[in-house]
Amino acid sequence: MVDEMVTYLETVRDRPAWQAMPDEVKAGLRAPLPLEPRPAEAVYEDFRRLVLPYPLGNIHPRFWGWVIGTGTPLGALSEMLAATMNPNVGGADHAACHVEAQVLAWCREMLDFPREASGLLVSGGSVANLVGLAVGRNAKAEVDVAQAGLRAAPRRMTLYASSETHNSVKKAVSLLGLGRDALREVPVDGDFRVDLAALRTAIAADRAAGCHPFGVVGNAGTVNTGAIDDLPALADLCRAQNLWFHVDGAFGALAALSPALRERVRGMERADSLAFDLHKWMYMPFEVGCVLVRHPEAHHATFTAPAEYLARAERGTAAGPTWFSEYGMQLSRGFRALKVWMSLKEHGARRYGRLIAQNVAQARHLTERIERTPELELMAPTALNIVCFRFRGEGLDEASLDRLNQEVLLEIQEAGIAVPTSTKLRGRVALRVAIVNHRSRREDFDLLVGEVVARGRRLAQTMAQAGARG
Amino acid sequence: MVDEMVTYLETVRDRPAWQAMPDEVKAGLRAPLPLEPRPAEAVYEDFRRLVLPYPLGNIHPRFWGWVIGTGTPLGALSEMLAATMNPNVGGADHAACHVEAQVLAWCREMLDFPREASGLLVSGGSVANLVGLAVGRNAKAEVDVAQAGLRAAPRRMTLYASSETHNSVKKAVSLLGLGRDALREVPVDGDFRVDLAALRTAIAADRAAGCHPFGVVGNAGTVNTGAIDDLPALADLCRAQNLWFHVDGAFGALAALSPALRERVRGMERADSLAFDLHKWMYMPFEVGCVLVRHPEAHHATFTAPAEYLARAERGTAAGPTWFSEYGMQLSRGFRALKVWMSLKEHGARRYGRLIAQNVAQARHLTERIERTPELELMAPTALNIVCFRFRGEGLDEASLDRLNQEVLLEIQEAGIAVPTSTKLRGRVALRVAIVNHRSRREDFDLLVGEVVARGRRLAQTMAQAGARG
Repeated sequence: MVDEMVTYLETVRDRPAWQAMPDEVKAGLRAPLPLEPRPAEAVYEDFRRLVLPYPLGNIHPRFWGWVIGTGTPLGALSEMLAATMNPNVGGADHAACHVEAQVLAWCREMLDFPREASGLLVSGGSVANLVGLAVGRNAKAEVDVAQAGLRAAPRRMTLYASSETHNSVKKAVSLLGLGRDALREVPVDGDFRVDLAALRTAIAADRAAGCHPFGVVGNAGTVNTGAIDDLPALADLCRAQNLWFHVDGAFGALAALSPALRERVRGMERADSLAFDLHKWMYMPFEVGCVLVRHPEAHHATFTAPAEYLARAERGTAAGPTWFSEYGMQLSRGFRALKVWMSLKEHGARRYGRLIAQNVAQARHLTERIERTPELELMAPTALNIVCFRFRGEGLDEASLDRLNQEVLLEIQEAGIAVPTSTKLRGRVALRVAIVNHRSRREDFDLLVGEVVARGRRLAQTMAQAGARG
Repeated sequence: MVDEMVTYLETVRDRPAWQAMPDEVKAGLRAPLPLEPRPAEAVYEDFRRLVLPYPLGNIHPRFWGWVIGTGTPLGALSEMLAATMNPNVGGADHAACHVEAQVLAWCREMLDFPREASGLLVSGGSVANLVGLAVGRNAKAEVDVAQAGLRAAPRRMTLYASSETHNSVKKAVSLLGLGRDALREVPVDGDFRVDLAALRTAIAADRAAGCHPFGVVGNAGTVNTGAIDDLPALADLCRAQNLWFHVDGAFGALAALSPALRERVRGMERADSLAFDLHKWMYMPFEVGCVLVRHPEAHHATFTAPAEYLARAERGTAAGPTWFSEYGMQLSRGFRALKVWMSLKEHGARRYGRLIAQNVAQARHLTERIERTPELELMAPTALNIVCFRFRGEGLDEASLDRLNQEVLLEIQEAGIAVPTSTKLRGRVALRVAIVNHRSRREDFDLLVGEVVARGRRLAQTMAQAGARG
């Protein structure tokens, strides 16, 4: 089984990046509840036949969809080791808790966070954002929100973030009971960074209207274009105005691992809470994100809830330094720390920095190819590792260009060539290439450019002919 | 590596259930951030030396602490397979999404939930409770809470649950912005089940005081004693009073898999939302819980948040039937469905039912042993698979008995014999044995009884002598 998986990873380049599942396979995945046992070998055979050939594709060297990482062989083996020991890392005194404590110390070290900061490994950036904003809500509230609830707050609490901020922030304010209306979406400048003047104006207007601005979300890499907000300016503003400074660095925070890129995300180490993912730009298997919080007491107060059956002891199994369950929603917590611990030991932080720099160089390479190709058009500045562009051709109106580019995208996916995805920027469809893939090479991007141009030309011609006929 | 893990599991009975980590091992787990690469073999050796020998112990046949499941070999291998493919199961069109859809259909089938219900695999019961209560909050609110926030609600929203309810419900109301004060903790009867008359009185009093009662949490197995609330009565009450009926069936819901036990959890299939875990009483590796929701639109409305970069397509990678990310907080979601899919195929639902019945029979056996042993005292009725008892001896006051039982517990853990934990019931320390362990045998419980009696006698004698001296 392990050998087959290693071979599967070694040969991934030879297979399509993605392929649609045939209907008969989908049908094979619909079956009544199994009542009786079957041999493990037969079950594995089902997996090989129905599941393994139809991946999302993100382990393929030409997958650049959304921001989805790749995974490594030792990462996958770590998951098996973790599940064999199968601890609950909610707390108690055992090795897994010490491993997570060690991993969190390394995360603080990587991102220049103070040693006293608390932290937690979580499922990913969405929950990391939720945790950071929950602590911020409670810490800055004018009442004891955890106990008394938001209706007891004298003023409406408001949060600020650029219009390019990830939708998990919207989900967080909704879940937290603040309501999506409480999130003020501030316009961006030409580089898709938050407009600082507009931000200041929005905060002042809310104060004048009797609201209670409590926090700002800064982006260290927006999901659409990779834009990085002016984090030092946001840190200054938050300090001056007593606001919680949360940084969503889902993938971008890790640019700090590259000495050459470190300066671009400077300022995030001043955040009150910082969210980032290891399953994105550190190439580890899903799920593992992290949140760091500068104020451990506020973090603990937000998530602790005493229970008799969770009583601590000075000795025995129920001792242990940190009960991680008191720093997030989960009481049962898997051993996600192990893959981080093993992967960081295997590769070392400097190699991650080099791979991250390599992805940024690939984004630069792709950007230059686009700029040199008259039929292609860059749709946003390439700030880091995300490239947004489109086929432009000539003589097509905007709506036709949207349709054309969407069709180019689908064709390239369906042919199994590559998986970029799309987004809309200022109302227009853009092909979007997000590079958090340690298997990609420069020729992969050259191939993409060639395919987009060739297919764009053909589709433009077809559309022009249809237009002429119509 | 796989062979060593299989051997590790085969020989688990020969090792201590738990052992304290020596200081030098703890020190080995504190090291600066690794900067340079090391061979994978050396990293694995670190794991074997520093981590593997110091487990929480829950894979041992005599671990009955908290409610922590065991895991199986195919479960662990499934995690490796999942991490090799490494999909993001947030959405899109690939096999993992279809596998999760299939697993959710099986969960509905197992627990008699309607086919139309929505569902989601989550990290565990805490998040399953959070999701269910979030949907309930939004569905029953008198304003659009997701959009406008709780401060816009005309009346204070209140939730009802017995005082034995899991602390994750307390954490949920706090996170949701309702505040812990919004959770009305209703007293229990002599069997630790919610007192229905007190519940009705509490709801009526809140209505009279201008509050807005919006939901009730029923327990299908409380964590302290395994007590099961009168679920049909709660379902009737909720229907009559237009309240959201959430059932926390973290482990107890799965009693439905045993035909002999099914009747005890009857009524939960009428819940608006039902939370349960597969990593507890289905012996699967962490993490995997599930929430089922009777009202798919309400579920979807609570967690959806449109984003341009998540646009759907009719074809290509971004097609796909269900975007699971719109039914919970996570956008990045691991392939936890695979271990469930493979495990259910391997064992079949009926075998799970037999194993669950076996654990209940073991709890019955232990209870009878306690009842037949004059120095032991049952501290709560054994409703299902949890047994609470203590060493009583003679001539010791209550405070001394508390100290004695706590010391008995620590000694048994530290000797590596077994891992029960403790709780407090009506103010008194109880030893607590929660049996969700498919490796336990009857003689394991006999051994525990013998150890508690022997150590209790010795400690009682020591304490009596110390008292006589003092």
